[in-house]
Amino acid sequence: MIVVPLIERKRDGGALTPEEWSALIAEYTAGRVPDYQMSALLMAVCLRGLERHEVAALTDAMLASGQRLSFDGWATPRVDKHSTGGVGDKVSLVLGPLVAACGVAVPMMSGRGLGHTGGTLDKLEAIPGFRTDLSLAEIRAQVMRLGCALIGQTPEIAPADKKLYALRDVTATVEAIPLIAASILSKKLAEGLTGLVLDVKHGSGAFLPRGEQALDLAQTMIALGEDRGCPTVALLTAMDRPLGRACGNALETEEAILALRGEGPADLMEVTYALGVEMLLAAGVEASRPNARKKLESALGSGLAAEKFERVIEAQGGNPKVLEDPSVLPQAQAVEVFTAPRTGVVTGVEPRAIGRGIVAMGGGRLRVEDTVDPTVGFVITVKPGDKVLEGEPIASVFARDEAGVRTAFETLARAVTIADRLTERPLPLVSHRVTQAGAEALTTAPPPGRAPRAAPRA
Amino acid sequence: MIVVPLIERKRDGGALTPEEWSALIAEYTAGRVPDYQMSALLMAVCLRGLERHEVAALTDAMLASGQRLSFDGWATPRVDKHSTGGVGDKVSLVLGPLVAACGVAVPMMSGRGLGHTGGTLDKLEAIPGFRTDLSLAEIRAQVMRLGCALIGQTPEIAPADKKLYALRDVTATVEAIPLIAASILSKKLAEGLTGLVLDVKHGSGAFLPRGEQALDLAQTMIALGEDRGCPTVALLTAMDRPLGRACGNALETEEAILALRGEGPADLMEVTYALGVEMLLAAGVEASRPNARKKLESALGSGLAAEKFERVIEAQGGNPKVLEDPSVLPQAQAVEVFTAPRTGVVTGVEPRAIGRGIVAMGGGRLRVEDTVDPTVGFVITVKPGDKVLEGEPIASVFARDEAGVRTAFETLARAVTIADRLTERPLPLVSHRVTQAGAEALTTAPPPGRAPRAAPRA
Repeated sequence: MIVVPLIERKRDGGALTPEEWSALIAEYTAGRVPDYQMSALLMAVCLRGLERHEVAALTDAMLASGQRLSFDGWATPRVDKHSTGGVGDKVSLVLGPLVAACGVAVPMMSGRGLGHTGGTLDKLEAIPGFRTDLSLAEIRAQVMRLGCALIGQTPEIAPADKKLYALRDVTATVEAIPLIAASILSKKLAEGLTGLVLDVKHGSGAFLPRGEQALDLAQTMIALGEDRGCPTVALLTAMDRPLGRACGNALETEEAILALRGEGPADLMEVTYALGVEMLLAAGVEASRPNARKKLESALGSGLAAEKFERVIEAQGGNPKVLEDPSVLPQAQAVEVFTAPRTGVVTGVEPRAIGRGIVAMGGGRLRVEDTVDPTVGFVITVKPGDKVLEGEPIASVFARDEAGVRTAFETLARAVTIADRLTERPLPLVSHRVTQAGAEALTTAPPPGRAPRAAPRA
Repeated sequence: MIVVPLIERKRDGGALTPEEWSALIAEYTAGRVPDYQMSALLMAVCLRGLERHEVAALTDAMLASGQRLSFDGWATPRVDKHSTGGVGDKVSLVLGPLVAACGVAVPMMSGRGLGHTGGTLDKLEAIPGFRTDLSLAEIRAQVMRLGCALIGQTPEIAPADKKLYALRDVTATVEAIPLIAASILSKKLAEGLTGLVLDVKHGSGAFLPRGEQALDLAQTMIALGEDRGCPTVALLTAMDRPLGRACGNALETEEAILALRGEGPADLMEVTYALGVEMLLAAGVEASRPNARKKLESALGSGLAAEKFERVIEAQGGNPKVLEDPSVLPQAQAVEVFTAPRTGVVTGVEPRAIGRGIVAMGGGRLRVEDTVDPTVGFVITVKPGDKVLEGEPIASVFARDEAGVRTAFETLARAVTIADRLTERPLPLVSHRVTQAGAEALTTAPPPGRAPRAAPRA
């Protein structure tokens, strides 16, 4: 395949045809187009963009490079949620079982943490024995039996995306909205869904911090999904501070379990319910927003959601006792309390700094091949807008050793800012609902409330 | 070396420091930075450009990757000419010996043809036995003895440029002015010159067709040369039609020999003298333009220039008889005359089409590793503005066989356009003289004159 004229055309602002994208991705996946040509093309895409028909063709080509889950003839609606990632985002662990408990099948395929952001797979794998590497056949069987599987990208799904992502990671070509959209949708569309709900983060800790970038990404993904027969809706949610209180793999799993027991922090529950409502509406099991919300609250309050998670854990080889006794999760060696260095108002809890702190403590990845320590992290009990007194406990740190505690304290000293008054309003927790028709601003987002104080885990 | 943040910075429009360029090029040349990262960076450079200090740092880094010719203590001025390439451009073969015959040393390092443009090395190698792969020591000795060497890029000179150029060629990152400038200057500055004259082509057959691109490239190279202590001047010359009459390797060598004998076509001589004048002025052997021109004309008229070429050919293993008897050059098997398909005025001789025709006939390269047939090509005896009668011979074609003749005829039918009147004025042959002080428009360029008709070679 002659690739240079294609690179030239994209470099000069032109577009490739669907046939060209299809052939290029097939040849690249087969190893017949070298990485150095693909990376030059990817950089041209980063700087020149892709036309809407090109994003579609690229997505289709990546989708076609692998297999798809098929639920032919099975009437149960199947809806997944995808988040663009952030710090403290353990929504998937709560939402998957919760929505499944409401009669919607959730084949939830997630990723690992990279850079400052965490990943659902790492959080799940904090549960002793939990396997995320199910085969397509296992996933299908489990989804049909339990209504939920919490899994990683299998080698059969979109191998072209896997190879391209690894190349983008080492060539500074990750942050391109069309490439991000095509990568996400090529995997989601392989899940055999009847609907898709996107949680697109904005704010300083998001992959794409600016609201207009998040909106652009949301609209690109919605167009891709809708054009391929998968009704798709997105919520724009806040990532200018961590979501919930816990940041770090086992700590977040514990918080997700608390949430399924009805003890979750307010902001985590708000985002979880907002996404859950969209999933129930997309599935058609409820027709009105208030009814969908009631159904979710009831599934949670009755313990059905927690029971669903228990059965999923059991089915995937994990220790189901974790739901009753989170202390079966691996425990950090060194636990300390961090106190407010002054009296005032919390003006910020910088999620990127928190995420980087976790990486520095051994709980995250700088490179795909790094391993993570599930025990380390933070439980931060204040949110921007909260009043604090000097010396008051505002966070617990969980580390491997004294050096880790020092790193954690330095991180918190930088990340948590306190001043006389709030200088900048935090972003609304759920700011917009985006559909193919456009973006609708939501006024239901409550001002960030103060979460109850948490003591270090017993 | 951590390359991703450097690619990111260039992608986002920032600049790399001289230390970063230096380390990057050294590590890349040593094989410790992979091609796929370098090609992503090169594409970002194509689309974001380089700051002036970056072009300088890149040039220095490529220069530093190899060795340099050293003429320490040798008082003779050393001036080279570089052309950005075109079709029918055999100036180097005439100019090197001519300027050397005027007492200026010319260590002339040239390249091979690629795509539609020819290369001086291919033309020289049409001479039986001629070697262009001299070592640095051989080049130095020959330049000091004869005042001229006509050679290729040695492996010792700018190996980083060689490796980068090969990568640019397969990643559509060739046509970036800062990369072109750095590539050319990194080689030229290794020649131990006291002055450099650039022939920057514009027009449809040039590498950079638009005049403003040519000027930008000229000014970038001039700044690089001057800042490194090598006085540099450029002429902008026309490449909207082939230069001279002959196009094709052996045919051009023959035309260069005719030129050294005083029988060259007017346009070839005009460009050769204009560049030669600049070289003599740069060398300081003449102070005025008219005197320099007279000196060149006298060196040519007296046979000194031809004799110089004869001695250079002999020194480099070639058959020196070629000067007296060009029929020692390899001869095409099939020779035919092409006649004007209608009466009218020649409105264009499209050089890119001619160059591609030569490639199609086996006389050029699509890829660096292709071999060329030196015998094939064209002798086109008309220029834009010439009146022609239907059926009048306007070109001779030289091919391997009847199929080649057909290709050649098809090429000429497309490339040579004839209409009732001239629709577009051809570019002035030598339009601007560019120095660090700016670009000066030249009015001395004569309108393109009609060259004498040439019969097929005997």
